This record gives sequence, structure tokens and C-alpha cells, in this order.
Amino acid sequence: MNQTLAEPGARLELGARLSQTAREIETVLAALLPLPAGPERRVVEAMRYAALGGGKRLRGFLIVEGAALCGAPRSGALRAAASVEMLHAYSLVHDDLPAMDDDDLRRGQPSCHRRFDEATAILAGDALQTRAFEVLADAATAEDAAVRCRLITAFALASGADGMVGGQMIDMEGEKTRFDLDQVRRLHALKTGALIRFSAEAGAILADAPVAVRDSLLAYGRDIGTAFQVADDVLDATAPAEVLGKTAGKDLAAGKSTFVSLLGIDGARAEALRLAQAAVAHLGSFGPEADALRALAVHMVERKS
Amino acid sequence: MNQTLAEPGARLELGARLSQTAREIETVLAALLPLPAGPERRVVEAMRYAALGGGKRLRGFLIVEGAALCGAPRSGALRAAASVEMLHAYSLVHDDLPAMDDDDLRRGQPSCHRRFDEATAILAGDALQTRAFEVLADAATAEDAAVRCRLITAFALASGADGMVGGQMIDMEGEKTRFDLDQVRRLHALKTGALIRFSAEAGAILADAPVAVRDSLLAYGRDIGTAFQVADDVLDATAPAEVLGKTAGKDLAAGKSTFVSLLGIDGARAEALRLAQAAVAHLGSFGPEADALRALAVHMVERKS
Repeated sequence: MNQTLAEPGARLELGARLSQTAREIETVLAALLPLPAGPERRVVEAMRYAALGGGKRLRGFLIVEGAALCGAPRSGALRAAASVEMLHAYSLVHDDLPAMDDDDLRRGQPSCHRRFDEATAILAGDALQTRAFEVLADAATAEDAAVRCRLITAFALASGADGMVGGQMIDMEGEKTRFDLDQVRRLHALKTGALIRFSAEAGAILADAPVAVRDSLLAYGRDIGTAFQVADDVLDATAPAEVLGKTAGKDLAAGKSTFVSLLGIDGARAEALRLAQAAVAHLGSFGPEADALRALAVHMVERKS
Repeated sequence: MNQTLAEPGARLELGARLSQTAREIETVLAALLPLPAGPERRVVEAMRYAALGGGKRLRGFLIVEGAALCGAPRSGALRAAASVEMLHAYSLVHDDLPAMDDDDLRRGQPSCHRRFDEATAILAGDALQTRAFEVLADAATAEDAAVRCRLITAFALASGADGMVGGQMIDMEGEKTRFDLDQVRRLHALKTGALIRFSAEAGAILADAPVAVRDSLLAYGRDIGTAFQVADDVLDATAPAEVLGKTAGKDLAAGKSTFVSLLGIDGARAEALRLAQAAVAHLGSFGPEADALRALAVHMVERKS
């Protein structure tokens, strides 16, 4: 269904490129989270448990690819990628808590509060957020500092009450009332979309790229972000838990409005494909150097977990 | 006992100065936390509930006074003060959670998760931390941005796994083993001390003051931070809950090591006084413009709540 989007060869190459970047991000993350000697060691163990050893690193990959496209150095992009992955990890740790989604599994392993305990998981999430901002603020020069303040501002907007956390709050409220399609779109534009949009535009911010370039990457990020969530709803409704590495079917069982409950499985699949095509269209001003991002848009809607 | 530290007049003036600054910080905080229209409004209501309407704003006061001492503009100092108070509020919201200290009362009111619910309290704490960093990153020029990156770095160090959160983790571990005096000192140097030290030095960072000035304020902050905690342990062991505005005697009842359990009530009071005197001594290079900070050191060990 997607031969028009990317050739099989491009997809093979994307897999290798994703793995390579994920490995590099993992190395940077491990170095950014050294274990201390004192009794506070436990919280850093929990931070490492949550942040290391898994995950596709899609958000980090977006930053690294966007930075390469815009000419920002790879080392700084990898550190920003580690930041966004720490923030993503914190959000998963807190989302999995009994008072929130109450999930026992994450990436096929016990969730952080199951492996440690609730208090440690709350603290580990808190400290992962702190560390994410700390890493972004590490500036070499005054010009670099100006870039970093812009990056932190965008990062905070994407993750706070106007972004990820706001979306999570809407999601909790959605358990009480039925949402229509526009409300579900807005929920996901905040809950998962905001951080994906930030990741797509972060490379342009790091490179201080022209506004038009930043806008293209932002629009690309907006569409793959929604595509990602629509595909997630499809997977949640169709894939077994052992493939997902997390508890499946929970949203449907809870009676929540999802893209699948509103559009049906086939309708949701078609919407995901439409969004992936729209995302690719936003990259029209780039040459073959944006092929990995194009292939990623396809991957977002084709993935099996 | 403290006529050598500050005259009664200075203490009266401190009270008025604290109230005035607390009012200004409150106004800035309220403006930084506007209520949105969508269903995410609930999390911002919880953020405002936790951050507004109370508290002595001691940390914010330290920033404002330190900034005045070093010649940094008051408007920027008030925004940084609002940041540190948002971070402090987030830490109280998460500390009060059932999985942590399980406190029903805060400042004489229901704690955030009692007034709202656990999920909302977790999210409100998360978003308060995010907003705190966002406000600090708001730079006007490249030089200002360099200052702000240094401020964010110090702020993150004070609040993450090497600071406040690490201290909270040590505190939880302390429920399992008895700590000696050095371990209790280190626990509080991280848990409450780190953010107080940051607050004391933040004005010097904002003003890009000489290292010697920054070091003096940092040493002052270190000693009032410990004095504050020692006095807190004394209050926890002696004051009734309706005066404290929170549940009293919990640490002693839980069998935790505290300054009071290790030094006795009189020994702890003497230690607090010694620390306040040491804090005042670190301000020796300043003239009467540091009198408010001197009076604050006395207030820390004299306060009744």
C-alpha cells in the first residue's frame, strides 16, 4: 500500500539507521546517568532502568536526522536526543503509576514502580525531567546559550500543561466523557504530538536554521505525530500484548474514545496512511538527504509494535 | 538569645519585607499560571492550588534579596523567585502523595491529591517543574542567555538526583536504617539544603557577580539551609499540628533519625543558633544592605511554624 511512499530498500536502510542512532543515543544516555555511591543510588538505578535498555528512540532519531538536515553538529544533536528520551522515559514512568494508567508492563519488562516501588518511580520520573533540562542548558558560548534558551523554551512548551502533561490530563478527563474526533485529535496533539513536533523541529533550532525550514520540519512532525498515534490505536486494538510489550486493548476496554472507536480499524488505517503522505509532502523542499525522514513516516504507520 | 544577631527593629522590618516580597512573588506566579479553557484546565487549577495562596516564600525572598545585594534587576529576580517557588511547590505535592509521605494537610489545607486526586497531583507537580525551567529560560539577549544557562544548570543540580530528589530518596531509605549525624546532615543538605543554597546564590548568578560574592552567598545559604532543617525538626517535635499547618511528629513516630533524636531538643536548638551565627558571619563583606539576610538567619531558627 505504500510503494508510492518509499521503496523497500529505503525501508531496509531506515532500520539500520534507526538501530545505529538508537545505539549512539543509548551510549550518551548511559554516560549522562552515572551511578552515585550514596543511598540516593537507588533513584539513579530507577532512572537508568527507565531510560536505558530499550525503546526505538524515535524522538531522538528525529532530532539527530533534523540536525543533520540543517547542518547542526551530531554530538550536540545526540545530547538533545538523550534529553528528549529522558523526558519521554519520565512520562512513561509516571503514566504507568497505579494512580494513572496502572500498567505493569513496559517494553516487555516490569514497569518502573513494579521493578522498584511507587515512591522511587515518582522520584525517578521527577529527576529524569530535571536531568533533561540540565543537559539542554549546557552551553559553550553566548551564541550557543541563546540557541539553548530557545530550545528549552520549545521543549518546556511541548512537555508541560500546554503539551504532554496537558494531554495526559485530557486523557484522564476522557474517561468520564466521550470525546468526538476533534477532541481526540487535540488530546493526542498534546499528549504525544507535542514532543514529536518538538523533536522534529529541534535540529532546526540547534542549527539556527531559517524559519521556513523550521516550519517545514514542524509540519512534518505534526503529521507523523498524529499518524503515530492513529497507528498506536490500531495496534492497541489488534496486536497481542507479547508483541506490544505492554498491556493491550486497555483503551477500548475502558470505553475511551480512540481513533479506532471513532473511525473503525480500516478507517483508522487509511487516516494513518493519509497523514504519512502529508508528512512526506512537507519535506518537498529537501533532496535525498531527507529520505530517512520520509521512510520514517512510512515506518510510523507500518510498524508492528 | 539572639540580641547579638539582630535587633528587634530589624526583625520587625524583616516581617514587613518578607510579606511585601511574598505578595510580589504571588502576583508574578499567578500571571505565570493562566487558566486554559480546555479540559486540561484541571491540571492548571491543581498547579495554582499548589503554588498560590500561601507559603512564606523564603526561597524566593533569598533570590530577591541576593539579587538586590548584587545589583540584578528586581523584575528578573521576581521571575526567578517564582520559578524556585514553583519547583518547591512541585516537590511538596509529590512528597505529600500516598506512596511518599502520605500527608493529608499542607499549609493548613488539604494536600493537592486530597483536594483533587492522585493522578492530577502527579501531573500538576510534573508541570510545575516544567514551567519552572521554562520561566528561567526566558532570555532577552545572548549575554542574558549565557547567564540563564548557568542559572538553569545550578537550578537543575539543586533539584535533581544530586540534590532535592536525591535527598528525598535518602529520606525514604532512612526509614529502613538508622542514620548517624553525618548521614542526617547529608540527607538534609540534599533534600532541603540544595534548593536553599541555590536560592541564596541565584541573585549573584543573575548579576554575574564576582566568584567571591557568589561563594559568600552560597556559604550563607548552606548554613541557613541546615539551620532551617534543624529548626524544622525541633518544630516537628514540639509544635501542634494546627500551628504547623501540617501533620506533626511524623518523623519521630516513624522512628526516623532526626537532629532532635540525635542531639536532643536543647542540643538541636543550640545547633540551629550556631548555624545562624555562622551564616551571618559569611555576610561580613557586605554592609547594612545585607541586614535583611542577617535578620532572616535569625528568623529561620526563631520561627514558630
